[in-house]
Amino acid sequence: MTALKTDSTLRPVRWDADIRPHGALVLLDQTRLPDELVSITCQCSKSIWNAIRTLQVRGAPAIGVAAAYGVVVGLDESRPDDQSWQTNVGPVCDYLAGSRPTAVNLFWALNRMRRRAEQLGHRTWTDARTALLAEAHAIRDEDAAMCRAIGRAGQHLIADGAGVLTHCNAGALATSEYGTALALVYTAAEKGREFTVFVDETRPLLQGSRLTAWELERHKINTTLICDNMAAVMMAQKRIGVVITGADRIAANGDTANKIGTYSLAVLAAAHEIPFYIAAPSSTFDMQTLDGSLIPIEQRPPEEVRTIMGKATAPPSVQVYNAAFDVTPARLITGIVTEHGIIHPVNVRNIRSVLGLNERITPIA
Amino acid sequence: MTALKTDSTLRPVRWDADIRPHGALVLLDQTRLPDELVSITCQCSKSIWNAIRTLQVRGAPAIGVAAAYGVVVGLDESRPDDQSWQTNVGPVCDYLAGSRPTAVNLFWALNRMRRRAEQLGHRTWTDARTALLAEAHAIRDEDAAMCRAIGRAGQHLIADGAGVLTHCNAGALATSEYGTALALVYTAAEKGREFTVFVDETRPLLQGSRLTAWELERHKINTTLICDNMAAVMMAQKRIGVVITGADRIAANGDTANKIGTYSLAVLAAAHEIPFYIAAPSSTFDMQTLDGSLIPIEQRPPEEVRTIMGKATAPPSVQVYNAAFDVTPARLITGIVTEHGIIHPVNVRNIRSVLGLNERITPIA
Repeated sequence: MTALKTDSTLRPVRWDADIRPHGALVLLDQTRLPDELVSITCQCSKSIWNAIRTLQVRGAPAIGVAAAYGVVVGLDESRPDDQSWQTNVGPVCDYLAGSRPTAVNLFWALNRMRRRAEQLGHRTWTDARTALLAEAHAIRDEDAAMCRAIGRAGQHLIADGAGVLTHCNAGALATSEYGTALALVYTAAEKGREFTVFVDETRPLLQGSRLTAWELERHKINTTLICDNMAAVMMAQKRIGVVITGADRIAANGDTANKIGTYSLAVLAAAHEIPFYIAAPSSTFDMQTLDGSLIPIEQRPPEEVRTIMGKATAPPSVQVYNAAFDVTPARLITGIVTEHGIIHPVNVRNIRSVLGLNERITPIA
Repeated sequence: MTALKTDSTLRPVRWDADIRPHGALVLLDQTRLPDELVSITCQCSKSIWNAIRTLQVRGAPAIGVAAAYGVVVGLDESRPDDQSWQTNVGPVCDYLAGSRPTAVNLFWALNRMRRRAEQLGHRTWTDARTALLAEAHAIRDEDAAMCRAIGRAGQHLIADGAGVLTHCNAGALATSEYGTALALVYTAAEKGREFTVFVDETRPLLQGSRLTAWELERHKINTTLICDNMAAVMMAQKRIGVVITGADRIAANGDTANKIGTYSLAVLAAAHEIPFYIAAPSSTFDMQTLDGSLIPIEQRPPEEVRTIMGKATAPPSVQVYNAAFDVTPARLITGIVTEHGIIHPVNVRNIRSVLGLNERITPIA
């Protein structure tokens, strides 16, 4: 397969230092894929807030990286001086944090930028800005490294000849590189294994058909697109041997918020005795949130369900449910693949242990 | 609520005797709903074959009624004389039977027309044509009566305050009147009960959002449209208390072919301990087919999954699975609501008994 590293068209979030006057954040507009490869250049925090809100950039890790660069863009925009720059950091972070409520990587990245700014208290704006941009680059680079490590940690779950089901897009387009769920796919393919990835189209916004199918095809992965309601019968026909999705937020007990429809797949996988894995970096864990019932779930506009890519598909007045995410309870998750290894079985103790949060680290099988 | 009987815009199949020279079959073009209310006038068997094939008319019972009228239209078209008319019946029936493979009502109605033609062996074409048109009318009227009886038999399954989930369209648009699954809904509403119907949009062809949501709104039923992948979380939130769908073919053991996605709902309902009912007239039972594995499943063009209402939603080259139906095993079906009562539990003996196929009829609780 083509090494993803070299496929810069799949880079959803990129800092372009050559754009005047200060450099700019360049996002691949994912709402226009697969029809058009269009970039948007963000030089104000509002355009970044809007890009996150409207899913021009999406995927929990990619949102975090975009927001980190957004702090730099937001400060450039307000043209702070050496006296005021630090008081501006909080409002920019607060503003960007309001773009979407569920994916925790957004808050994680913004908090990290906030802490870095605090450390830089007595620096001049020029020095601090250099350090904050370096911090955003570090978040980006670490995300890419975490994705590679997730791929290495979980690639063995995809055997030669396997059928893998994934949902939404947890690929290169959702991260700095490689993806989370798809990191396992790409790494297994790099090892020469042949398998088929079944891709749920993922209504309402079709991240599966528009993004994942497109991304996998570019990397010559054998792909079969299905409608969301076909997953069960593919499982019954034994064409799917493992389900792997990403995550937007994982609570302390392992309950996992991810794109709407993930819970359905977890229940169906359990009913068909198929292992169900989550793949996510440690930045997706929210140890402050005890269980899934406490994760805020974003409700999105009803038009997303009443229309498809701008075309009306239902009576305009019909009532709609449109939560962007659902929560899969830990008991339905076979394992969580992180950059530190696989958490299995999924419980508080094993999560803390694998993430290195316990005083005494207990090795996990 | 408005009595469905008077809402002729919801009549999917209608014989118009005033259309010259012989009268014609008038179909509501369901591919253009909910945007446009357009009728198509069929005066040749090819147009009827095409209307069934392309889902301008759809729904197992409605297809059967349309095909019955199609036999008359097909004979009018070939202008048979008193010597040849009977030899023409077989080819017309064979031709129409090739339009779609799964819904058994099509074959049931055509076989009934064939048998009637045999009984009319020595009649003149004029007499036989009158009798065959009367037979098609009878199939239509009996279908309407069966739907009403299904509604009466199952309406108690929808309690006041209930949440009902349905899939695809098993309503007035799928039958001569009232529908099968939706007959329960309409009859419960007529009894003054208030409840919410959750409607799966039913990809790929969106019969839920385009047809069922539209039909229910016209009858002022409290309706919430959801994407197919949201049903599970609605169940987990206890917003759905019962699932009711139609059927395209029910095998002798109760295994049921219905719109793709039905099996998924049955598995999810079982996992959430929610009753799952099929509603179907006796013409949907195929006692010659022993179990669901023997039901032929229609595979439809991949473009239906790669596009939505003409708009590309996926890479044009991506491989697709697009079976129009799946099979739900009898063990996942709480009961089958027929015009003769509810089959529960679902097994060969109870099916034969409720349908009156046993020598000794055993009453079912």
